[in-house]
Amino acid sequence: IPRSFVQTGADALSYRHSVLKTLLSQRRIPEHGVDELTIEWIVNELAGMDSNNHKNSVGAGEREGRVICPLVQKRNLYLSHGIGRSGDLLSSQPKAPGSSLLNVLTNNMVLDLIKTSGVKACKEAIVVPCATGMTLSLCFLTLMAERKQAKYVVWSRIDQKTCVKCMLTAGVEPIVVEPVLHGDSLVTNVQGIEDAIYSAGKDNVLCVFATTSCFAPRTPDKVIPISHICKRLDVPFIINNAYGVYLKKCMAHIQEACHSGRVDAFVQSTDKNLCVPVGGAILASPNAAFVQKAAQLYPGRASAAPTLDTFLTLLHLGRSGWAALVSQQERNFGKLKLQLQQFAAKVGERVLSTDTNPVSLAMTLANIDISQKSLGGMLLSRHVSGARMNVTTGNQSKIGTVSFRNFGQHSDAYPAHAYLNIACGIGMQEPEIQALMDTLANCYAILADQR
Amino acid sequence: IPRSFVQTGADALSYRHSVLKTLLSQRRIPEHGVDELTIEWIVNELAGMDSNNHKNSVGAGEREGRVICPLVQKRNLYLSHGIGRSGDLLSSQPKAPGSSLLNVLTNNMVLDLIKTSGVKACKEAIVVPCATGMTLSLCFLTLMAERKQAKYVVWSRIDQKTCVKCMLTAGVEPIVVEPVLHGDSLVTNVQGIEDAIYSAGKDNVLCVFATTSCFAPRTPDKVIPISHICKRLDVPFIINNAYGVYLKKCMAHIQEACHSGRVDAFVQSTDKNLCVPVGGAILASPNAAFVQKAAQLYPGRASAAPTLDTFLTLLHLGRSGWAALVSQQERNFGKLKLQLQQFAAKVGERVLSTDTNPVSLAMTLANIDISQKSLGGMLLSRHVSGARMNVTTGNQSKIGTVSFRNFGQHSDAYPAHAYLNIACGIGMQEPEIQALMDTLANCYAILADQR
Amino acid sequence: IPRSFVQTGADALSYRHSVLKTLLSQRRIPEHGVDELTIEWIVNELAGMDSNNHKNSVGAGEREGRVICPLVQKRNLYLSHGIGRSGDLLSSQPKAPGSSLLNVLTNNMVLDLIKTSGVKACKEAIVVPCATGMTLSLCFLTLMAERKQAKYVVWSRIDQKTCVKCMLTAGVEPIVVEPVLHGDSLVTNVQGIEDAIYSAGKDNVLCVFATTSCFAPRTPDKVIPISHICKRLDVPFIINNAYGVYLKKCMAHIQEACHSGRVDAFVQSTDKNLCVPVGGAILASPNAAFVQKAAQLYPGRASAAPTLDTFLTLLHLGRSGWAALVSQQERNFGKLKLQLQQFAAKVGERVLSTDTNPVSLAMTLANIDISQKSLGGMLLSRHVSGARMNVTTGNQSKIGTVSFRNFGQHSDAYPAHAYLNIACGIGMQEPEIQALMDTLANCYAILADQR
Amino acid sequence: IPRSFVQTGADALSYRHSVLKTLLSQRRIPEHGVDELTIEWIVNELAGMDSNNHKNSVGAGEREGRVICPLVQKRNLYLSHGIGRSGDLLSSQPKAPGSSLLNVLTNNMVLDLIKTSGVKACKEAIVVPCATGMTLSLCFLTLMAERKQAKYVVWSRIDQKTCVKCMLTAGVEPIVVEPVLHGDSLVTNVQGIEDAIYSAGKDNVLCVFATTSCFAPRTPDKVIPISHICKRLDVPFIINNAYGVYLKKCMAHIQEACHSGRVDAFVQSTDKNLCVPVGGAILASPNAAFVQKAAQLYPGRASAAPTLDTFLTLLHLGRSGWAALVSQQERNFGKLKLQLQQFAAKVGERVLSTDTNPVSLAMTLANIDISQKSLGGMLLSRHVSGARMNVTTGNQSKIGTVSFRNFGQHSDAYPAHAYLNIACGIGMQEPEIQALMDTLANCYAILADQR
Repeated sequence: IPRSFVQTGADALSYRHSVLKTLLSQRRIPEHGVDELTIEWIVNELAGMDSNNHKNSVGAGEREGRVICPLVQKRNLYLSHGIGRSGDLLSSQPKAPGSSLLNVLTNNMVLDLIKTSGVKACKEAIVVPCATGMTLSLCFLTLMAERKQAKYVVWSRIDQKTCVKCMLTAGVEPIVVEPVLHGDSLVTNVQGIEDAIYSAGKDNVLCVFATTSCFAPRTPDKVIPISHICKRLDVPFIINNAYGVYLKKCMAHIQEACHSGRVDAFVQSTDKNLCVPVGGAILASPNAAFVQKAAQLYPGRASAAPTLDTFLTLLHLGRSGWAALVSQQERNFGKLKLQLQQFAAKVGERVLSTDTNPVSLAMTLANIDISQKSLGGMLLSRHVSGARMNVTTGNQSKIGTVSFRNFGQHSDAYPAHAYLNIACGIGMQEPEIQALMDTLANCYAILADQR
Repeated sequence: IPRSFVQTGADALSYRHSVLKTLLSQRRIPEHGVDELTIEWIVNELAGMDSNNHKNSVGAGEREGRVICPLVQKRNLYLSHGIGRSGDLLSSQPKAPGSSLLNVLTNNMVLDLIKTSGVKACKEAIVVPCATGMTLSLCFLTLMAERKQAKYVVWSRIDQKTCVKCMLTAGVEPIVVEPVLHGDSLVTNVQGIEDAIYSAGKDNVLCVFATTSCFAPRTPDKVIPISHICKRLDVPFIINNAYGVYLKKCMAHIQEACHSGRVDAFVQSTDKNLCVPVGGAILASPNAAFVQKAAQLYPGRASAAPTLDTFLTLLHLGRSGWAALVSQQERNFGKLKLQLQQFAAKVGERVLSTDTNPVSLAMTLANIDISQKSLGGMLLSRHVSGARMNVTTGNQSKIGTVSFRNFGQHSDAYPAHAYLNIACGIGMQEPEIQALMDTLANCYAILADQR
Repeated sequence: IPRSFVQTGADALSYRHSVLKTLLSQRRIPEHGVDELTIEWIVNELAGMDSNNHKNSVGAGEREGRVICPLVQKRNLYLSHGIGRSGDLLSSQPKAPGSSLLNVLTNNMVLDLIKTSGVKACKEAIVVPCATGMTLSLCFLTLMAERKQAKYVVWSRIDQKTCVKCMLTAGVEPIVVEPVLHGDSLVTNVQGIEDAIYSAGKDNVLCVFATTSCFAPRTPDKVIPISHICKRLDVPFIINNAYGVYLKKCMAHIQEACHSGRVDAFVQSTDKNLCVPVGGAILASPNAAFVQKAAQLYPGRASAAPTLDTFLTLLHLGRSGWAALVSQQERNFGKLKLQLQQFAAKVGERVLSTDTNPVSLAMTLANIDISQKSLGGMLLSRHVSGARMNVTTGNQSKIGTVSFRNFGQHSDAYPAHAYLNIACGIGMQEPEIQALMDTLANCYAILADQR
Repeated sequence: IPRSFVQTGADALSYRHSVLKTLLSQRRIPEHGVDELTIEWIVNELAGMDSNNHKNSVGAGEREGRVICPLVQKRNLYLSHGIGRSGDLLSSQPKAPGSSLLNVLTNNMVLDLIKTSGVKACKEAIVVPCATGMTLSLCFLTLMAERKQAKYVVWSRIDQKTCVKCMLTAGVEPIVVEPVLHGDSLVTNVQGIEDAIYSAGKDNVLCVFATTSCFAPRTPDKVIPISHICKRLDVPFIINNAYGVYLKKCMAHIQEACHSGRVDAFVQSTDKNLCVPVGGAILASPNAAFVQKAAQLYPGRASAAPTLDTFLTLLHLGRSGWAALVSQQERNFGKLKLQLQQFAAKVGERVLSTDTNPVSLAMTLANIDISQKSLGGMLLSRHVSGARMNVTTGNQSKIGTVSFRNFGQHSDAYPAHAYLNIACGIGMQEPEIQALMDTLANCYAILADQR
């Protein structure tokens, strides 16, 4: 083979070495997305460092990263030692330097993601191998280790089961603060939160717990004033930022809260933000010590799956790919809103005015038959998933020990009798909007006829 | 194409349909391992049922199972919805019937595994998408939801960090019961456990916590008498059976404990037993309600990764493959023990007599230089991982809030000054034994010279 | 799992069954591209029909489709029997009904592709598991079996080695007919071809051999008048349509030639048209018998790789995907031409006028230093591949036994002393055009300075 | 991450670098099989060198290695440029240094394989991307380029269609030399071959064509005396060694023929010897020039698939893995023969005495109903493939232009009226033998009853 041809090949390989070197030295998301072949090469190099992949290795312990099923081997890209080490998610494993490096690099990249996306005050961020709910529970348990007598969480009501469950799992009792109605929007009752802290006694309050990303007509919690209260009263503050990383407003508010108030941790879903399979969350904080304490509280090693999926996706996207996704969502949300408003006007309905919610919309359902509660199901059977019909029933329901009236409406009494929720999440494509509107129009017409 | 050829092909395909049908109807591990092509087909069929893989589907919610990175898509076999549903690991997801079915089938198969492996009294078993430690924490949190004032766990000491951490994570305080010395073995202080319950007050005791699989010279806890105490005193009993599924003795004892005493849950690692990557645990119980409560306590959906790896591995192995692995471990443990005894005799050391430990061995290190604490490291750099040297230091150390003397020795004062631990875990191959003994002999000789 | 969820899943699976059923019944390229998961499922079903994938099969012959290396197994998607059967590319294999079906379906789809792309007169088309050159040799050998004393091929000169070699391989001797100059274009010397047949004696002529897709300033051969001559004189006509499937003009001319004249076969590359790896060609003919004879001449089974890659790609694209690629090439060729003309005007060069060439362009290189022959190399080292500099040297060179003057210029004496060739092949993306023009401008400037 | 952990990882990676370095410098099959992760890494490095995988590369030619379908991309391991270059299978491609290197390394390894397996006199060996038949045709065409008037091939009859077809494809006429009967065996008529050369006139004979691996009762051709004749008379000699690489006797005879006589080329199947999918052949010769001429005759680039599969398999096996496969075949052939003899004795049949055939056996079928010709089909429908029943019919049949009596019996008149062929090919496992014998016994019993 002529030397010059080989030189061309060697030049090509130097690209991938530079990608890896930059990653190792800068520990940030690469500027541009990395091609698949190079990503596979990087993961192969990492996997090759772990003892389970050593040629002729002998395992004399009780857990040696052996994998019996070849399909399992492959799909885990030959990584089997998980992350962390007997009781610390951030510790390195002597048997698994490759997996350890994967963990460190991914955590560095998610910190970069959080800062790049607006929370510059963030000091530490890690992928926790549990979904958002369990990671929130871990936050509560971390606080409990230091505030042993504090049993209450002052919680700005949001009607998603997981948001309630995550408190119950940790064994704490929510003090529910109902949002207040401003126009169509359900907004944070800031004063109510402060009052709740006082009436429970601040030493009995483990933390305040608020949510940024939510279904309309609920709007993102006012985390800035809450953080000020928490700072003033020396009460911890945990934020559920489930799908807020790609929403600039949510991130800007968290940034300001971290900067001028008190935030102990904010938690975001890897799947809802980065379009990876369910399973991980990013635990972030302006207080590095909090994240480290939580990581040390986690008992044992853990699955590397969420970390690996996050690693692959961030390399695949690069900063420019991420920025493009964020812009696409902004643009498509605007389009969806406009089209929904036009449709609503045509059929005599109304899109609820919830301007501060940058991701979810609600349209009244005043002129159709809702007795069968079937619109969501009709849409699902027509391959539109995720749209939800919400009807005021007045029913009382219970999640664990906590009672709610009209669960699902974020409020005991919301004026609109029935409405439909639709969202424009990250990754939604423009053709989906058109298909959604067409299908909605069809279903609506059917139910309007039935009325 | 001649009809007869096509017939041959159709016959071949009917095999795979029968595998799937049997799996769906019997919900047990198949008798014999299923070939890779058929397994891939089964998973493809399951994935094809989930909404994220529907042709032209529209996602109008905040989480639609979109996957952006093709490598992530592939390695998750197109499954992205995780398992469970907002606060219940066992609930089905309307968007993800395939993932839901995967979850149900896997849980059925692990129940079959537990029963087949000896605990016929088991009524429910599920894969929890957290490793053993976190799953044990989940058990404690589940008990806490009903025994709110109980703050203590009576714990038969075993010196692995995760075993301590899992209690601290849940916010409970361990009452440490030291094991007692019988010959060389450290065995459960059954009376000490009963005494500890009495002195704490049984209503203040959340549960007793014991361990079956452990490093010699500690021996598996006597779970049968403990279960009798727990039954008598009405105190819950949680067993850490980390790598005990393939150890017939451990399973037989748990079976008897379930049968004649009280056992609330026993937890085993998926990675340590089934040779899958770290990340999951099997939560099993003779009391189906306990498992369901724990599953309902889990806040939110969760990663399907441990479930999927378990599913693939159990199909790959079949009952006969599993049985072969179990027999191989028994056989190889015997060989390893014999060879270690022969070596020990030759160099003037002694394999500690720990007959009830079916997986781990300990050999004294009386005649070598241990001042550098280097034997484990020497072995690791020669590609023998998992062997640990243990030296009595008399040091006091702390894990969280709990103090230990000589942590690592399972006892404040173990007579042997120094010993080496080696284990024969499931999947260890015969050539590994020879390589291990050769490397050990080399390293031992070097350290003997240095003395 | 609720019945309604399962129903949703079953509905989703019915889509894939309908895709397969339509494919089996209509045997055409599907209207729209099929998603990856469904394609994998289809191939899995086919592979499952072959005997090497039967559970517990016994192989008692000398070739049983066993595959030893798992990576080989995987990458061949478990297909190992190849296509065809001892001396016929179109025969079915009793051991391999799945592979046989794959072969039939792919051949049906390439026939559909050829017809859809313009040659409606095509009666049979198959994927030959050899690249274009060898497939052309196979055509010559097929003709030779019936025209035993015919030793000459009347060939419209085109200076690509393979075009010469394919005749030499078959053991025939080319009679070279130089193209003639019309303006800047080198066009077919139709009269010269007729003259050559007469002077060799038509019974001594195996066939006429022309080429449609070529580098400017050569233009596609005038296959219509040639086909008329061949019909009139009863001489076979073979067309090299290497990368002409996506060029509407090429296909239209072949259609007319098939319709009103004589065409025995036209051959096109799978890689150059369908963007699959090198290795296959589509042998097509308005005369089904010719294709069958060629297939029967092929000695033995053959690799299924080109067939499989073609199958996967056509399912992935669908008709609409293919149409989009074709339009993209047309559009991008126009853009490239315009930008090259603008650049040429700026630097005092000229894009040669070759209007009938729909894929390749040539620009004079009159004002730079060409003594080093380095422009192509300079571009390659800047990651622009495929551009070629052509300089009139007057040299005589030989390919096998055939002598050429100025090989590479398609003509003994082309007026332009030096020119650069660039093409806009199928799949070229718009950003490539910009990058190409930028790099070209840079390199040109350097060489202009050196002059 | 502690430096010592990273060191362990770096040590592990140095193994793979040493594997690649050794491969590049020694260009031989590695001593021991290489693990899958390392093989994937090697191929990834090679693929990364090709221009189609360069970051931001621009393709300005007509064939740029673009791949549109991701499944095709993946399964070709990102390699798309094929091997060879416009008319030479051994030329390097400037755009594809990685593919070129793959080609060189594979060819070096197959040369090593041929030499290691017994033919030390071999000077050059390459993977031709066509199966055995087409590669033999290529050999004939190569000879024809220099022996233009030679139209006949003196051929030792063997009744496999491809063996006849490969001559017809090349346009040569076989002179059939019937084997002679020695005991039960059909052996080479050496004198008949010499006579045939004389009567045709040696300048009219393109070559002698013999076969080493064959179905009993035919035995491997006596290539040594034939090679002596060819040397003496200056007539080329081509050997079909289809599945002879793993048969020590075949290789020893070829070695001696190369050493003391004349052999121009010997051809072996990659699939039948190396258990890769159908598609390639190894063209080997004691005369490097012959191989190079054949490679240069091949018109154009070609599929890299057979090369890649061979590369992967040889790395996977290593010399020790190959040696183990060869020994296993020897051992299993002995077992199969013994069991067949025992069965034959029991039912009053006889295994034909064909001691020089090391791979195929024939057992008489004197005592069953053969009127339905059904034994092969019965076995196939019971998942035993490859067994063939052979019955003397006296029929005349034609392949192309060549007539045969009793085609399938290698002879106009073989004494045994009916017999069954079974083979023990490489890769046959011991359990297959048992299953084969059981199924045979069942089927035999059924047909014995029908008689």
